Amino acid sequence: MDGHEHTGVPLPPMEFNLWGTPGEAKPLSHGVHKLLDGVFNVDKPLPRIPEEDILIRESMLGTGDLEALAAIVGADRVSGDKGQKLGRARGKSYPDLIGWRLGGTHDVPDAVVAPATDEEVLEILRWATRERVAVVPFGGGTTVVGGVAPERGGARAVISLDLALFDELSDVDAESGLATLGAGLTGPAAELLLAEHGLQIGHYPQSFPYATIGGYAATRSSGQSSAGYGRFDEMVRSFTIVTPSGILEVGDASPASAAGPDLRELFLGSEGAFGIITRVRLRVHPVPEVKRYEAFSFRTFEEGVAGLRAVEQAGAGPTVIRLSDEIESSVNLTSGDSIGDASKAPEGCLCLTMYEGTEEHTASRHAETRALLIAAGGTSAGEGPVRSWEQGRFGAPVLRDGLLDNGAICETLETATDWSNVPRLKKAVTRALSDTLRESGTMALVMCHVSHVYREGCSLYFTVIAAQSHDPEAQWWAAKNAACRAIVEAGGTITHHHSIGIDHAPYLRDEIGDLGVAVLRAVKKELDPAGIMNPGKLLTIDAPEAPDEH
Amino acid sequence: MDGHEHTGVPLPPMEFNLWGTPGEAKPLSHGVHKLLDGVFNVDKPLPRIPEEDILIRESMLGTGDLEALAAIVGADRVSGDKGQKLGRARGKSYPDLIGWRLGGTHDVPDAVVAPATDEEVLEILRWATRERVAVVPFGGGTTVVGGVAPERGGARAVISLDLALFDELSDVDAESGLATLGAGLTGPAAELLLAEHGLQIGHYPQSFPYATIGGYAATRSSGQSSAGYGRFDEMVRSFTIVTPSGILEVGDASPASAAGPDLRELFLGSEGAFGIITRVRLRVHPVPEVKRYEAFSFRTFEEGVAGLRAVEQAGAGPTVIRLSDEIESSVNLTSGDSIGDASKAPEGCLCLTMYEGTEEHTASRHAETRALLIAAGGTSAGEGPVRSWEQGRFGAPVLRDGLLDNGAICETLETATDWSNVPRLKKAVTRALSDTLRESGTMALVMCHVSHVYREGCSLYFTVIAAQSHDPEAQWWAAKNAACRAIVEAGGTITHHHSIGIDHAPYLRDEIGDLGVAVLRAVKKELDPAGIMNPGKLLTIDAPEAPDEH
Repeated sequence: MDGHEHTGVPLPPMEFNLWGTPGEAKPLSHGVHKLLDGVFNVDKPLPRIPEEDILIRESMLGTGDLEALAAIVGADRVSGDKGQKLGRARGKSYPDLIGWRLGGTHDVPDAVVAPATDEEVLEILRWATRERVAVVPFGGGTTVVGGVAPERGGARAVISLDLALFDELSDVDAESGLATLGAGLTGPAAELLLAEHGLQIGHYPQSFPYATIGGYAATRSSGQSSAGYGRFDEMVRSFTIVTPSGILEVGDASPASAAGPDLRELFLGSEGAFGIITRVRLRVHPVPEVKRYEAFSFRTFEEGVAGLRAVEQAGAGPTVIRLSDEIESSVNLTSGDSIGDASKAPEGCLCLTMYEGTEEHTASRHAETRALLIAAGGTSAGEGPVRSWEQGRFGAPVLRDGLLDNGAICETLETATDWSNVPRLKKAVTRALSDTLRESGTMALVMCHVSHVYREGCSLYFTVIAAQSHDPEAQWWAAKNAACRAIVEAGGTITHHHSIGIDHAPYLRDEIGDLGVAVLRAVKKELDPAGIMNPGKLLTIDAPEAPDEH
Repeated sequence: MDGHEHTGVPLPPMEFNLWGTPGEAKPLSHGVHKLLDGVFNVDKPLPRIPEEDILIRESMLGTGDLEALAAIVGADRVSGDKGQKLGRARGKSYPDLIGWRLGGTHDVPDAVVAPATDEEVLEILRWATRERVAVVPFGGGTTVVGGVAPERGGARAVISLDLALFDELSDVDAESGLATLGAGLTGPAAELLLAEHGLQIGHYPQSFPYATIGGYAATRSSGQSSAGYGRFDEMVRSFTIVTPSGILEVGDASPASAAGPDLRELFLGSEGAFGIITRVRLRVHPVPEVKRYEAFSFRTFEEGVAGLRAVEQAGAGPTVIRLSDEIESSVNLTSGDSIGDASKAPEGCLCLTMYEGTEEHTASRHAETRALLIAAGGTSAGEGPVRSWEQGRFGAPVLRDGLLDNGAICETLETATDWSNVPRLKKAVTRALSDTLRESGTMALVMCHVSHVYREGCSLYFTVIAAQSHDPEAQWWAAKNAACRAIVEAGGTITHHHSIGIDHAPYLRDEIGDLGVAVLRAVKKELDPAGIMNPGKLLTIDAPEAPDEH
């Protein structure tokens, strides 16, 4: 394909070795530097290696393969360019990003292809099945669990299939509150298209600026307004999924049904292992008329958790409700410019609430929530903390690049459990991270918040900051695997909203059992008989036990 | 097994050829007689045939088979008694009940077995797999779609496996709002056990007095308080399912998860075709402090539907919201004693709302709902109609037996669709039923209500009353199949809460497509390789096209 312009292959939205684009990068604030200096002692941080100095694996595809792909989608939508491959070779986890700073030859997809129709996707998958070439779907590339790693499984090569050209809004039914969105649309692009109809999705994960509709569906993403609008999987009415065995339209018939098993739930969270979601019909709602805000402070995390539980079990109905533990509250993550400035942080544990809808709806939800939080021991901290959180809420991943530049580890992981099990799970994960990192020679700052609530429980989201050792990959995997084992042993789910990918695959069998694994394998065999779909993700569940190191 | 007492086999809760028990039967009211006399003209109703005159198929099981079952569960929990078989041979659809009034030899299970532990169920399924004996799970026997029909598939015999001995409440976690209930518990039995802990499920389908926890889960039941507490499938946190390939514990890990596909949704609605649900962990809530009631009247059904849509899309939050069309409202079904007395029915279309929770919660939900319904054109009809509906709401199925005694057809069927498609679907189903029944020589009263609402649509529940022809089975199947075809063509789901069973099986392929069927078959093959689990239900999807007659 050399000599072609590849103008039809969209550039990956983010810089390959950063979150976001270089323009987004910001120098660390005085507060963060103070935090780093006060806690850690890093002598020689690993610098970023520029693109031209990075070595990549040679392509396993021949000219004939690229010509075959070009015959399906056109030569301008197939690319073997290094920049295109680098941008699709890893996601954005801490090990993904630190990996680019290490030497060696990096594994990358052997080619990139950008189909624009279901029929083109189907033809690619049939070609890949015949030719035993693995296919990794690519959306926004925001995975933090290895979801786009160019694993080959038993295949002879691997291609990255970019969904960016699935970028349309169609079939808007404002009366029913439904709209169909292309899998390649990012959160902001989808919201812009819907705003022209006065409609909104209301799905705001931290990856919102880059992550895509298809990725949200394939990974069971959960956004910051989940209390009001639900998890992404709850917003999905129906979708199109293209598998090597054919195209399925799933969930068309009705808002709810008793017509057997709900097949939607077999493909939501399937991470490209069965097929590729190309189009999602979503439940959408009018842009809210009113927003209300109030923060609260609790003396202890336990007290705050009891408050959140009371609110959720009463069905009081905030759109957003979150609670940071003592450490996270004192680091003041809700206010970008004041991070690390404990003098500006409120006392105790910070709880943020937001309400969206009509004037009457938000007023009653706010009143009921407020009464329950105050009855649980909360005191009002006004609107300010919620408004500054709302403004800065997509900024944390950008901050991480600066921390890495300064020799720090910065990573997050998450789980969920029943209310009665929250203390045990929080303690187990915190201890696993702290102990393992201490063994590697660094103290660790382990922060935690609750950001998704359910009638019977909630999520726990951990942020870890520590100093990099001289072998940062081994150091991190020791900590990560200790945390995963702690989650399994303390009765949490291995992932509440980051999905399985490669990183959590060794723990899936613990969660769903041998027969659960057998069921997933039977479905995969039916839809992807050659096993070419996104090898290693989700279904790498043959590992006999969780590894000690990655 | 003759000579044994079978004392361990519970008697089916209902009379084999009636809804409920003989004690529940009531003579038809004056209003109903007036309705029948005014509309229909039946000369010679089919009388009920007493049990002793009913002929049943000879058992295909030998003494050795019964001894093998007795070796697993004990001789007193295996029965070949006629009464036990009759009570488990059919459900409670109109054709089920009219069938007992016709002559001929009736198909019944070849034996009844009542295990009490997961291990006993597993041993029975393994024996049945080896011996090629089909197994039909039995709960309350309330199916109206042929879900317990003693089909053999390719097996040499069929047994009914009664779940009544799975009758325990366990592992109550009041903090998290979770409790585990045995699959054989009826709605009232489950609520009684939970009430001792101040807890409630809040699932009230019309079958509530008899239907069981396992049946609710296996059929995706939906209850009258679904607006407040959700469908039954939404209440299920986790469950145990015993399959011929082993026992699965599904959904244990967490309130919500991104750990791959949600396998719960593959077994909810699986109707015993993959295995037998023996125990369900449910989301439960405190018994509500307060109930509020208000009925509204709308000039037209369209206006009322728009009102329900506004309430649901605003998230106003009633616990119950229902709307009867003009005909159903005039027949006054909400008031047992006044049925058919149009003088006592409110004008137009009756809408019922109910609110449960704390004083503050219910007051604000009531106020918001009321404002939206009035803005949509509704006028208040006070508390009365809601209270009389609440009192009489489980009574309609009993009334049906009296109608059958008087030569009437009385049957219900249901579907769901998006708000924008409600008028088209309602018209299509009404016309299909009316036209087909008119061709059979009777006029038909076709009533409709909305009883379950979703952000993007609602259910439509049809009740048909007409006069029986001289061939009532053929007459009904012509009408039913015309209605099913109308549903498929007008874009509804083939069943919103009655499940697939045998009756809807020919239409499942229309709903989920060839690949959807292939996926279900792959799962079944993995878990039930001999195909002994509840043959003919759900997975009778090989029929090349919908039949003209049943």
